[in-house]
Amino acid sequence: MSGRIAVVGIGPGSAEQVTPQALAAVRSAEAVFGYGPYLDRLDIPAERKVASDNREELSRAEAALTRAAAGQRVAVVSGGDPGVFAMAAAVCEAIENGPATWRSIEMETVPGVTAMLAVAARAGAPLGHDFCAISLSDNLKPWELIEKRLLAAASAGFVIALYNPISRARPWQLGRAFELLATVLPAATPVIFGRAAGRPDERIATVRLADADPAMADMATCVIIGSLETRIVERPGLPPLVYTPRFSAGPAR
Amino acid sequence: MSGRIAVVGIGPGSAEQVTPQALAAVRSAEAVFGYGPYLDRLDIPAERKVASDNREELSRAEAALTRAAAGQRVAVVSGGDPGVFAMAAAVCEAIENGPATWRSIEMETVPGVTAMLAVAARAGAPLGHDFCAISLSDNLKPWELIEKRLLAAASAGFVIALYNPISRARPWQLGRAFELLATVLPAATPVIFGRAAGRPDERIATVRLADADPAMADMATCVIIGSLETRIVERPGLPPLVYTPRFSAGPAR
Repeated sequence: MSGRIAVVGIGPGSAEQVTPQALAAVRSAEAVFGYGPYLDRLDIPAERKVASDNREELSRAEAALTRAAAGQRVAVVSGGDPGVFAMAAAVCEAIENGPATWRSIEMETVPGVTAMLAVAARAGAPLGHDFCAISLSDNLKPWELIEKRLLAAASAGFVIALYNPISRARPWQLGRAFELLATVLPAATPVIFGRAAGRPDERIATVRLADADPAMADMATCVIIGSLETRIVERPGLPPLVYTPRFSAGPAR
Repeated sequence: MSGRIAVVGIGPGSAEQVTPQALAAVRSAEAVFGYGPYLDRLDIPAERKVASDNREELSRAEAALTRAAAGQRVAVVSGGDPGVFAMAAAVCEAIENGPATWRSIEMETVPGVTAMLAVAARAGAPLGHDFCAISLSDNLKPWELIEKRLLAAASAGFVIALYNPISRARPWQLGRAFELLATVLPAATPVIFGRAAGRPDERIATVRLADADPAMADMATCVIIGSLETRIVERPGLPPLVYTPRFSAGPAR
């Protein structure tokens, strides 16, 4: 008898932003695999939690599939949505390259509110028009490719959401990205640094591209860079609204 | 005394994918504005519902803000996430261009699971690497700009999620988009048509770009077009997994 694997998005952080489907999937699993801080958010018995390090996505996927192949119902959790730079792709990859029997394991993916949506909600509506999401990590792709994509996206008028913007092992990449974007975007382009959106320790800050400082970001920050059309609406006594209008008048540049 | 406005994402369709935060925001509102079919999903008294047509986003936003300015607690709902081609940008636009007093209205945006995440979850992990979201509607931007963005995104190796792919008033645009993408992507590139993900009437189909037929989509479909790296894992007795690996070996083309 074959088990099953659920790959579950537990949202950006607040319990109020976890879907009932995600909760049910986690609660019905016999073992729940994930990065420790994500597991800490879950109200399930400690003995069901199998914690591993942030950078061990593939081995975590393999461990979970091994248990599922043995007949268990397992879950693997990601913060935000599991399909965006997270565990769903790692599980698919493990299935593709693993034992043939793993292809018979039932897999359910439970979507969640991904970080850029939570940050955008706190800032206004910066993703209100065409946008893209780029992982700034060059652990898994050449830096040259990241530069190419940043320039292509900004030049074509996409708002850009950056995931994995910075880490101890990748200290210079975000600064380089800002420099590069400044060659095709105006100095006044709004840049939003969003961390822990919806949680008590939330930090959302909007600055001009020319003033964007990589030190404002950490591993858990999502950085959103506006397009030529992104606007700021000042409000008395309230934070400004940053939004990208639904309407675009013409070709970028 | 000023009221407040909540702009709320009620997810892709299933009640199991609505966050507790969204439910609470809708239930605490004295009036809930939205497109009729979205309001139909909400279990609140009919007299609180204010329905309007799909294409009246700005006037809906203005009507809601008028009530909020009069002291009411109002909500505006979007399917999916309100920040992605939906009501949050319309409300920001109305605030920017409306009476100065509207800038004092407290605005809360409640994020949700947007369509591309729900469709991706059902298909595998097609958005597992860099991707973009493009609205294919040329009601609000010139078609020329859409073509430019499609080519820029595909050429730079982004997976592409298309919102608003087709409608009675816009019958040819999706076919033209497939033709255009076929000039830069291989014939075998996976294309996912996802409709009503997570609902009883769900339809998810994956075809090759060369076989992609616009008739497979309607207004409520999200179309995801893979990149050069998107893969299909066949599984005995189960639907294939479509995923884009976390790892990319080199620059696109």
